[in-house]
Amino acid sequence: MKLMRVGQPGHEKPALLDKDGKIRDLSAHVAEIGGAAISPEGLAKIAALDPASLPELSADERIGACVAGTGKFICIGLNYSDHAAESGMAVPPEPVIFMKATSAICGPNDDVLIPRGSEKTDWEVELGVVIGKTAKYVSEAEAMDYVAGYCVSHDVSERAFQTERAGQWTKGKSCDTFGPIGPWLVTKDEIADPQDLNMWLKVNGETMQNGTSATMVYGIAHLVSYLSQFMSLHPGDVISTGTPPGVGMGMKPQRFLKAGDVVELGIEGLGTQKQTFKADR
Amino acid sequence: MKLMRVGQPGHEKPALLDKDGKIRDLSAHVAEIGGAAISPEGLAKIAALDPASLPELSADERIGACVAGTGKFICIGLNYSDHAAESGMAVPPEPVIFMKATSAICGPNDDVLIPRGSEKTDWEVELGVVIGKTAKYVSEAEAMDYVAGYCVSHDVSERAFQTERAGQWTKGKSCDTFGPIGPWLVTKDEIADPQDLNMWLKVNGETMQNGTSATMVYGIAHLVSYLSQFMSLHPGDVISTGTPPGVGMGMKPQRFLKAGDVVELGIEGLGTQKQTFKADR
Repeated sequence: MKLMRVGQPGHEKPALLDKDGKIRDLSAHVAEIGGAAISPEGLAKIAALDPASLPELSADERIGACVAGTGKFICIGLNYSDHAAESGMAVPPEPVIFMKATSAICGPNDDVLIPRGSEKTDWEVELGVVIGKTAKYVSEAEAMDYVAGYCVSHDVSERAFQTERAGQWTKGKSCDTFGPIGPWLVTKDEIADPQDLNMWLKVNGETMQNGTSATMVYGIAHLVSYLSQFMSLHPGDVISTGTPPGVGMGMKPQRFLKAGDVVELGIEGLGTQKQTFKADR
Repeated sequence: MKLMRVGQPGHEKPALLDKDGKIRDLSAHVAEIGGAAISPEGLAKIAALDPASLPELSADERIGACVAGTGKFICIGLNYSDHAAESGMAVPPEPVIFMKATSAICGPNDDVLIPRGSEKTDWEVELGVVIGKTAKYVSEAEAMDYVAGYCVSHDVSERAFQTERAGQWTKGKSCDTFGPIGPWLVTKDEIADPQDLNMWLKVNGETMQNGTSATMVYGIAHLVSYLSQFMSLHPGDVISTGTPPGVGMGMKPQRFLKAGDVVELGIEGLGTQKQTFKADR
């Protein structure tokens, strides 16, 4: 299933995209795309509904972030060997994790605000993993049982804030609107192999990233298991699993986003995003 | 006012501690200690109530985290010059920030779980700042308008996870139960000078930390203003402002917590916490 949230910020309705591309209102059946609704049992209940019986919503409505109630937005650093190389960093001996503020989360096509003082706002297409069931100390073999599905995640990053402003990456990762996720939470049954998905990103129509999740260093099952050794993962938590090569920081000369730039990105089977970058006033 | 939350995890009632030390039930007046209830307007409404008119709750009930709905748990690293020295680090040229998972938050007297594989679980008494109003790009002069109040925050830390497990501190800061906050959210009107509060921590009765918020490098108003340049701060967000000297990592030889240890900590005017450390199974 392709689950989504449509409507103005803070007023999104839970919905699904049916096989004909129509948006169907789920609000009579679930309170949100999140929490219990994305547990294995919750997803089974939604799957049992006849989409044709659900009210159709306008295709013109804003699309919100694909999951609500995200408690943790965990990112994996340097998780593609080629991206590590372009960043001038070694592939880490175990996953590097950092947090993006959940207040950065926005819809897939919302404007992205370039923060005041930013000169190095950069792009990163990433495969997002949405947790459906509380996971603690889970093995790699059972890890996928805790995954509800996947989404496109744009890990927008301010490189000066991230690396030149005294310690820890969070500062350059957490700005408002730096976390577009969606358009859909695609349940895992729809994706035959999440480690074999093409992913791409364009700036003003020019292809910047063109990779595949096949070159991820630490795969999804490993990451879920690994993270669960350090902290419980809860339904609605999102893991953004790292970016393939082609970010602006890695170019020679380096290239960053400015007001008016349009970024489009997508992952095979997970849909596309399109954002206009604007100065935050 | 001293606001608090009492009851079993997930079922806490909002309450206040009256001048006679009685716990008074606020649940007929506010849904939670958090969100709109801790805005300036929300706090004024609670302040207008006659505590004697509120039902008394048992003093034997569990005390929960002092604020609900925390979206961000932001910590400031190396923010006491003496602690930076004992950590072998320089005082940073601007605040170092990192995130603690909000899923680590627990009550002030709950057991703290030493995660599997941990050999370096450490203590850190910290002054917590609770945001009451959305803050974005606020000046230092106006920053305190966005603060609802203060609390004791125990930034429990696993030093090997934090510094020896590949990049970024989050990994050693986010384990379940590593974030006791409370017992009270003490509204800012009760604290004449938050930069002049004694703070202390004992392990099994032995004093380990005995400092004062007067030696904080970057003060509260500066931190709120500074953080708001990078991301919006929202009601219920907690800033844990760093720890004074005396952590186990800084001792020679180093000293860490083991199952059965009892940690007590407190800050002048903000109350005390007491935790028994246990092995997480």
